[in-house]
Amino acid sequence: MITLSSDFGSPYPAAMKGVVCRESDARIEDVAHDFPRQDVRAAAFWLTQTLPYFPPAVHCVVVDPGVGTDRAALVVRAGGHALVGPDNGVLVPAARELADGGDFEMFEWTYDDPASTTFHGRDVFAPAAATVHEAGVDSVESLTQTVPADEWIDLRFPDPIVRDQGATGEVLVIDGFGNVITNVPGESVTDAFGESITVGGERVPVRRAYAAVDPGDRLVTVGSHGNVELAVNQGRGDEAFDIETSAPVELTW
Amino acid sequence: MITLSSDFGSPYPAAMKGVVCRESDARIEDVAHDFPRQDVRAAAFWLTQTLPYFPPAVHCVVVDPGVGTDRAALVVRAGGHALVGPDNGVLVPAARELADGGDFEMFEWTYDDPASTTFHGRDVFAPAAATVHEAGVDSVESLTQTVPADEWIDLRFPDPIVRDQGATGEVLVIDGFGNVITNVPGESVTDAFGESITVGGERVPVRRAYAAVDPGDRLVTVGSHGNVELAVNQGRGDEAFDIETSAPVELTW
Amino acid sequence: MITLSSDFGSPYPAAMKGVVCRESDARIEDVAHDFPRQDVRAAAFWLTQTLPYFPPAVHCVVVDPGVGTDRAALVVRAGGHALVGPDNGVLVPAARELADGGDFEMFEWTYDDPASTTFHGRDVFAPAAATVHEAGVDSVESLTQTVPADEWIDLRFPDPIVRDQGATGEVLVIDGFGNVITNVPGESVTDAFGESITVGGERVPVRRAYAAVDPGDRLVTVGSHGNVELAVNQGRGDEAFDIETSAPVELTW
Repeated sequence: MITLSSDFGSPYPAAMKGVVCRESDARIEDVAHDFPRQDVRAAAFWLTQTLPYFPPAVHCVVVDPGVGTDRAALVVRAGGHALVGPDNGVLVPAARELADGGDFEMFEWTYDDPASTTFHGRDVFAPAAATVHEAGVDSVESLTQTVPADEWIDLRFPDPIVRDQGATGEVLVIDGFGNVITNVPGESVTDAFGESITVGGERVPVRRAYAAVDPGDRLVTVGSHGNVELAVNQGRGDEAFDIETSAPVELTW
Repeated sequence: MITLSSDFGSPYPAAMKGVVCRESDARIEDVAHDFPRQDVRAAAFWLTQTLPYFPPAVHCVVVDPGVGTDRAALVVRAGGHALVGPDNGVLVPAARELADGGDFEMFEWTYDDPASTTFHGRDVFAPAAATVHEAGVDSVESLTQTVPADEWIDLRFPDPIVRDQGATGEVLVIDGFGNVITNVPGESVTDAFGESITVGGERVPVRRAYAAVDPGDRLVTVGSHGNVELAVNQGRGDEAFDIETSAPVELTW
Repeated sequence: MITLSSDFGSPYPAAMKGVVCRESDARIEDVAHDFPRQDVRAAAFWLTQTLPYFPPAVHCVVVDPGVGTDRAALVVRAGGHALVGPDNGVLVPAARELADGGDFEMFEWTYDDPASTTFHGRDVFAPAAATVHEAGVDSVESLTQTVPADEWIDLRFPDPIVRDQGATGEVLVIDGFGNVITNVPGESVTDAFGESITVGGERVPVRRAYAAVDPGDRLVTVGSHGNVELAVNQGRGDEAFDIETSAPVELTW
């Protein structure tokens, strides 16, 4: 199986699908093609939330603001999966999740001048993913286009500061529902379920489910990602909390 | 085959796909993941317009404003298909269509506390759909997690009043083109093809095809769903008729 | 394999998928369902950019402003592929690409009155694609519903005027990134890589990659389609150049 992830919108991913279908018999599943444009951190986050649910597969990821420059192309082997994409950090957090505490291995995928300087998803990464799939994840080192990568760009999400009486965190991403996903671990607030904490100084109820407050009301919950989430039942948390990606989040309990 | 339908947008459905791929070999086809958010009636309508065209399959449907509350999870068997989703009515109209006048059977899918209280699509419904698929639609009662459901929430679309000289109906949904889909049966107006009727007191031509009027002009037609539709050739009917979902529709002929 | 392309948005394509799954075992891959509404030229362009990357397949294309009128349905055989869609030109440029300088063959798909006059994607083209797929692309003439088409609507993109010192072209389409794709061949400007040309009288750098200029800065590049493209690094070219589809483009070098 090959999964495809990008910020390409439509219809560019179809050319990648065609290339994969020509060069392998792999089943294709789309993860998403509407990641926020050229937002490496947001894409990296969403990959940690989606790829670990798949069985071992080759994951082709193209969020690539440096397309056409000399940034490297990588193949990462982690927990029986392979990730293929640009060397800008986008693959790393998901690789850590897939390795599940173990090691992951980095290879550079070297390539001749591709047909385009603007669409490496079609001309570099889709062919690389198909080749890795056909050779098998265990055989990456036997592919003559790969060499062990001794340097690569890391990406880590910012660490929150969790204290006895509160936490200082940051908004990692905002999802399509407007739910505000922070970097504060959910277990910080589970003792407060049914009660309230303060968010930026204002008291907000902490609940297990959106529907535990009235439609339109704000709540703090623990999202499916395991982090503290600022939300509104049947509404948008980002608007109700007037907050955006990368903004600081101050919680007290 | 497992079909997936939700109001999750992107990228949450990818986690559901991953779970299905890990727990079954089923082919996956997406129906839609952009149903209007938490709009059970609209989703129920669109399922009646799409699921009956599929061969027998397991249809996993997650439009679930009550996620995390004690609402039940259901498996419905109808006409060789199985529908899996929350007990809020969303599955029922499609089940009636799939049963094609026959009976459908309701089972409750019981589950232990899932990993999340906000993403039962990933943690409850996708695993349930994969399990039903692997066991086979005929074996639902043998799955130890299911019990016959003796109570469940029904959902019926409102009935129109059709008279000799007109009809009083309601807007069921508006599609992405802006076509206004009413609950008035199309056969009410087929005698008027080539002529006109009044909509809210104004005369509008009744035509078999959008292109039978000039671009930008209003028409009444019979949509692919078999109901009376208020439309504009190459334009938006909802704007031209200034009408929205659930609004009354008064037709005279 | 059957690919699906349309301007239907969601969820109408799901009914087409269901029909295809009922009538064939073909693998289905979506090309796009968000082509600009009823914009035959834009769809025709995008098909030239996507279908040639697929292995031989049946491509079902529905961008069909004339649905329900007496416009013909076509099956086109080109380079081992078959294209199925309305006779409005939308299939022709991709057929030329797939034929790769060779001939392509046009057949009319004749059909009885379909269930709907507004959704031939479901009632005419999806069944036709499934039938062609099951019969095989080499057997189109043996299908009793097809007859050689002696007349059909052609579609050609406008030719640019390329001179020694510049070119007069036109905007073909604008992609989802806001990149302005012209009909001026890319080789016209490759000598200017690293230098600048004028666009509408203003000097703009010509670069191989978006990232070769600062974020927010304009550039001229050669897109993955091989044509001259007006773009902004990490921004929208259409807004920065204040230009839209079909507008003239005046370049001097």
